[in-house]
Amino acid sequence: MGNTFGRVFRVTTAGESHGPAYVGIVDGVPPGLELSEEDLQPDLDRRRPGQSKITTPRSEADTAEILSGVFEGRTTGTPVAILIRNRDARSKDYEELRDKYRPGHADFTFDQKFGFRDHRGGGRSSARETSVRVAAGAIAKKILLQRYGTQIVGWVSQVGDVQTAVDDPATVTQEQVEATPVRCPDPDAAARMIALIEEIRKDRDSIGGIAQVCAHPVPAGLGEPVFDKLKADLAKALLSLPAVLGFEYGAGFAAAAARGSENNDAFIPAEDGVRTRTNRHGGMLGGISSGMPIVLRCAVKPTSSIPREQDTVTRSGEPATIATKGRHDPCLLPRFVPMAEAMVALVLVDHALRQEMRS
Amino acid sequence: MGNTFGRVFRVTTAGESHGPAYVGIVDGVPPGLELSEEDLQPDLDRRRPGQSKITTPRSEADTAEILSGVFEGRTTGTPVAILIRNRDARSKDYEELRDKYRPGHADFTFDQKFGFRDHRGGGRSSARETSVRVAAGAIAKKILLQRYGTQIVGWVSQVGDVQTAVDDPATVTQEQVEATPVRCPDPDAAARMIALIEEIRKDRDSIGGIAQVCAHPVPAGLGEPVFDKLKADLAKALLSLPAVLGFEYGAGFAAAAARGSENNDAFIPAEDGVRTRTNRHGGMLGGISSGMPIVLRCAVKPTSSIPREQDTVTRSGEPATIATKGRHDPCLLPRFVPMAEAMVALVLVDHALRQEMRS
Amino acid sequence: MGNTFGRVFRVTTAGESHGPAYVGIVDGVPPGLELSEEDLQPDLDRRRPGQSKITTPRSEADTAEILSGVFEGRTTGTPVAILIRNRDARSKDYEELRDKYRPGHADFTFDQKFGFRDHRGGGRSSARETSVRVAAGAIAKKILLQRYGTQIVGWVSQVGDVQTAVDDPATVTQEQVEATPVRCPDPDAAARMIALIEEIRKDRDSIGGIAQVCAHPVPAGLGEPVFDKLKADLAKALLSLPAVLGFEYGAGFAAAAARGSENNDAFIPAEDGVRTRTNRHGGMLGGISSGMPIVLRCAVKPTSSIPREQDTVTRSGEPATIATKGRHDPCLLPRFVPMAEAMVALVLVDHALRQEMRS
Amino acid sequence: MGNTFGRVFRVTTAGESHGPAYVGIVDGVPPGLELSEEDLQPDLDRRRPGQSKITTPRSEADTAEILSGVFEGRTTGTPVAILIRNRDARSKDYEELRDKYRPGHADFTFDQKFGFRDHRGGGRSSARETSVRVAAGAIAKKILLQRYGTQIVGWVSQVGDVQTAVDDPATVTQEQVEATPVRCPDPDAAARMIALIEEIRKDRDSIGGIAQVCAHPVPAGLGEPVFDKLKADLAKALLSLPAVLGFEYGAGFAAAAARGSENNDAFIPAEDGVRTRTNRHGGMLGGISSGMPIVLRCAVKPTSSIPREQDTVTRSGEPATIATKGRHDPCLLPRFVPMAEAMVALVLVDHALRQEMRS
Repeated sequence: MGNTFGRVFRVTTAGESHGPAYVGIVDGVPPGLELSEEDLQPDLDRRRPGQSKITTPRSEADTAEILSGVFEGRTTGTPVAILIRNRDARSKDYEELRDKYRPGHADFTFDQKFGFRDHRGGGRSSARETSVRVAAGAIAKKILLQRYGTQIVGWVSQVGDVQTAVDDPATVTQEQVEATPVRCPDPDAAARMIALIEEIRKDRDSIGGIAQVCAHPVPAGLGEPVFDKLKADLAKALLSLPAVLGFEYGAGFAAAAARGSENNDAFIPAEDGVRTRTNRHGGMLGGISSGMPIVLRCAVKPTSSIPREQDTVTRSGEPATIATKGRHDPCLLPRFVPMAEAMVALVLVDHALRQEMRS
Repeated sequence: MGNTFGRVFRVTTAGESHGPAYVGIVDGVPPGLELSEEDLQPDLDRRRPGQSKITTPRSEADTAEILSGVFEGRTTGTPVAILIRNRDARSKDYEELRDKYRPGHADFTFDQKFGFRDHRGGGRSSARETSVRVAAGAIAKKILLQRYGTQIVGWVSQVGDVQTAVDDPATVTQEQVEATPVRCPDPDAAARMIALIEEIRKDRDSIGGIAQVCAHPVPAGLGEPVFDKLKADLAKALLSLPAVLGFEYGAGFAAAAARGSENNDAFIPAEDGVRTRTNRHGGMLGGISSGMPIVLRCAVKPTSSIPREQDTVTRSGEPATIATKGRHDPCLLPRFVPMAEAMVALVLVDHALRQEMRS
Repeated sequence: MGNTFGRVFRVTTAGESHGPAYVGIVDGVPPGLELSEEDLQPDLDRRRPGQSKITTPRSEADTAEILSGVFEGRTTGTPVAILIRNRDARSKDYEELRDKYRPGHADFTFDQKFGFRDHRGGGRSSARETSVRVAAGAIAKKILLQRYGTQIVGWVSQVGDVQTAVDDPATVTQEQVEATPVRCPDPDAAARMIALIEEIRKDRDSIGGIAQVCAHPVPAGLGEPVFDKLKADLAKALLSLPAVLGFEYGAGFAAAAARGSENNDAFIPAEDGVRTRTNRHGGMLGGISSGMPIVLRCAVKPTSSIPREQDTVTRSGEPATIATKGRHDPCLLPRFVPMAEAMVALVLVDHALRQEMRS
Repeated sequence: MGNTFGRVFRVTTAGESHGPAYVGIVDGVPPGLELSEEDLQPDLDRRRPGQSKITTPRSEADTAEILSGVFEGRTTGTPVAILIRNRDARSKDYEELRDKYRPGHADFTFDQKFGFRDHRGGGRSSARETSVRVAAGAIAKKILLQRYGTQIVGWVSQVGDVQTAVDDPATVTQEQVEATPVRCPDPDAAARMIALIEEIRKDRDSIGGIAQVCAHPVPAGLGEPVFDKLKADLAKALLSLPAVLGFEYGAGFAAAAARGSENNDAFIPAEDGVRTRTNRHGGMLGGISSGMPIVLRCAVKPTSSIPREQDTVTRSGEPATIATKGRHDPCLLPRFVPMAEAMVALVLVDHALRQEMRS
């Protein structure tokens, strides 16, 4: 269970890291949207391994084939199926994992849950699964852009102790982000992040970081009052990504130390209605979008797979050591950005379509 | 939409702050559980207003009536309906809100979403809605305790700049938490938090904070590999509560600055199987419970309702000022604790029942 | 589980025949609809027991109280909770059922499913549960009427061997139906049905029948191509009612003996677009509404509760006999009509709201 | 929407008749089941076109490829993705359908719903979509057989005016059914059915019929008391298949003319507990399985595509005539049998897994 996301724009995925292919079925795509594989590939390329010197050398083209739901270049309103074949799977690298649990990975918990597991490359728990989400997210992004002009831009704001702060998240462009392989729009910070990642790799270690996403403009009124608050569905969406340990939006954890008189955003008249003077509420009030930019941040842990020896146990409970072989990113953040954008897009389009029922 | 939570243990709520009553329907309660209103009341009392000098003086007994699903003292497997009547509603206090948007509240976004709103006490956006969740959570807690021995304990770990750190979250007891009205198990920190809240109240302001929850023991194997990761459903659950701006578990945002070699938790043999040497993973790996304590933290913003004058606009877009009347908590954290525990319980019982299908 | 119906217009119910009350939560009601208890009562009165000499003498006012979701006479877009208290419950009549299984009832299967049961009046399996559905259906009917002019009219077309056929189902009016207590719009057939029911009652027996429902006009385009075909959701809706053993629409089972050349409905131009010359397709093609009247029929079994002695077994498996006491309808059909209409309304409004997302 | 079926055993499908492929994702398959493509092929072969002289000559191998969820011959508990490529698609045969609505088909209603459509071979409305359901159903059948010994056998009980009645549905074997291409276990009736179908084909017409399905043994206790009654979910499942106009179980429509004293099935002690003397309740009481054989029947209309000229209209509303070219079955029933069995299997396994949560 749990392989479907969304209420009315629904993405269902299947596939394992070293199986034949990943498949996604996107149900709820409105009819009439121009769509082809070319719409999906740019974000898949941003997510795929081997894209730069600071990512894993596993080489996967991650080419998407659309199997249904498109006729003569336009969506028909029936589900869009996406197929991504696996190619460069070196299953032998993982033979040791049949019997040993990698620290920080899902090996042990999969065994506890299912009784056994496809150990090759993490099987279903591999982050390769997000390829289908990214493809589905590209469809969601296109709908949001066409209907509401919404842009969803993510970037890396922290790697280890290298941080950067953006004055106005709504002004960051994808061009700025894509200017460096680390996907940080601040060139100075980007250079330091890249240097740090290189150093970490040489040290046979890994490093964590923080990604930020801004969606803007987002129509006011998206999100439901109680359980399906927009912030709640965004939190679920982001935490459903591998390695994410935290989520905050607007003022986030910093609000814990704030007073109401400084944290509240005053409403002020605007040309086209109402806006707030500041945006400590990150574009959501009562779980519903306010029309201000939606701004959120995610904490991503350091890659669990490191080529150092670590203590662990075997399936039979014997002490052992393990040094991950395989091919891995020293820092997950650069490739995390398109995943995070995709999940934000899936949530927004789902709520936007829900809201269209009301008007 | 969006008024139902859970996949197989499902809670549906209805009700507004100043309407006749709140109602909850809890579907999926296993048959044979001893249950009466007395099981629900203790947590409702911990959540209700007017319980101490540092909470709002609104006086609601929050007495739950069970209308169905229980026969001769035991659940029947059919849905349990819970009714909580509203009593001390002073709707007149809110007349000004018909036309003015309170900063930090959902007034504006409700209007954007629905076209109009029940302005009395925030209507559906009032945190009074959580009363039904707390009652449902009490059922969930009882199931978890009986079946797995699971204890779910929440507490306040920060108010403004007063922080406390707990050495081992799994050792905090509800007795320690309930020893002070601020629900902080560290008596020194509790005293300073209470003093700070008193000072804030006198200053006609409000203050934010952080709550922590630990669930232990939790059987390994709960949570689904992809979208319905346990961490994702917990994040959604907590962010679905009013005023929550952030969520983290285990190492959380601190992991951003960590290296893999220091963040990974080594597996070690244990008496009854396998455990990890440390618990930076907060009891979840790959989104599935590991058997280690589940530890999470939530950032809660300062109460948006403050008796100071704030800038805002009217429904017609005219500039205005507003000073919240009504009766409000200067700090939401003490009453937030039982809400957070309830949401954690709802997620855990839902996933525990899902997992029972597999074994 | 299974106490919620609908995808975007969702009804969740709780309650037992001899418990304190029935509760329904209707989520997805669009905001701005004028609504009060007076909208719900007429259909509740048509369903309630004791309404005529050919129904059970159990006397329940079935008065609905709206607890939420309505403000100043209009729906707010938040869930509408409905409370119906039980009053005339004679639980003592059912004491024998603690230990004996009534033939044709759910006593045995509830025990098999849940391990024990609330035996009083059938507990959750009682048809009294449909009272909440009828109230929710009244809301659905009002939305359909206001938005699309849709009328949903049901009637009894067969009781035992007394049948009636209607030339054009779309012309039957509720006035014709309500003209007799048996809810058959053909006065001659109605008289014979009533006589038959009286005779059956005197014979301490019960009798089955068939109900028909027509919804018209229904906008073309409702229903989904594959699993959520409109006909599929209607079939589920009707079969979810107690005592229904069969469902057919359009030509129904008679189509089994027909040829394509006689069964196909030719398309012809119409003033406002396209219609079909005949309506053997019952208003649905490919599971999607065609704009022609939706016409369906349900087979309802004879009341299982009869005051004759019948063979059965006890909980411990011993042979026994049972003669149902309690108070029961000799024929379920007259009170079945509003239930069937309600379920049709719930399905149509759910699909109508889904379709509004597309346009 | 509406391309997913089931609550905990969930099938999601995508694909069009003349697109590249059909895809199905089966979520909720328990881990540890031996599974390969060879388990799926037999039922796919029973469904595929071109299997006998009384079916359509379109030649599709309908070969299924499993893309995920199986590791070293056993299911892993993660979703099983199934791919079926289309091969013998003669899209040119359908060029005329761009502009003309075929009577009895979904062409017109798709246009009304989506604004336009993939007209080739009916696009998403083609019965080829059921190939994926049949493959998923084969997995469900295997689980049911292994866990409960359940056999699901379907057959043709009526074609046109040729009927057959089976004394005890639970004794019909798949061998008897597969003995003739018409899938009727009564050899005499089968011969007459085949002759009738041949005659109908020569007459350039089509003919309807009735299929019956029996599942046995089915554990008592499956199905939920209210909306998700087992009979309701079966009705939805069967009506979600193309061309089905009616559903009944047990006594079905015949119960309308019956008295309670003759329709009730008496309970009697049995070796392993309790059974009923007769089975007019078709194995379900109160919507929950009783342990008696589940017996149901479906009415299937005559194939809408006939090579005779029929009146219709064009997309612009002009009168026209159409004679279906393409390649079609003169009678849908023989190939309908595996589809019906698959849907019954999907419902039963979903409810069986749900019930395992309770025990």
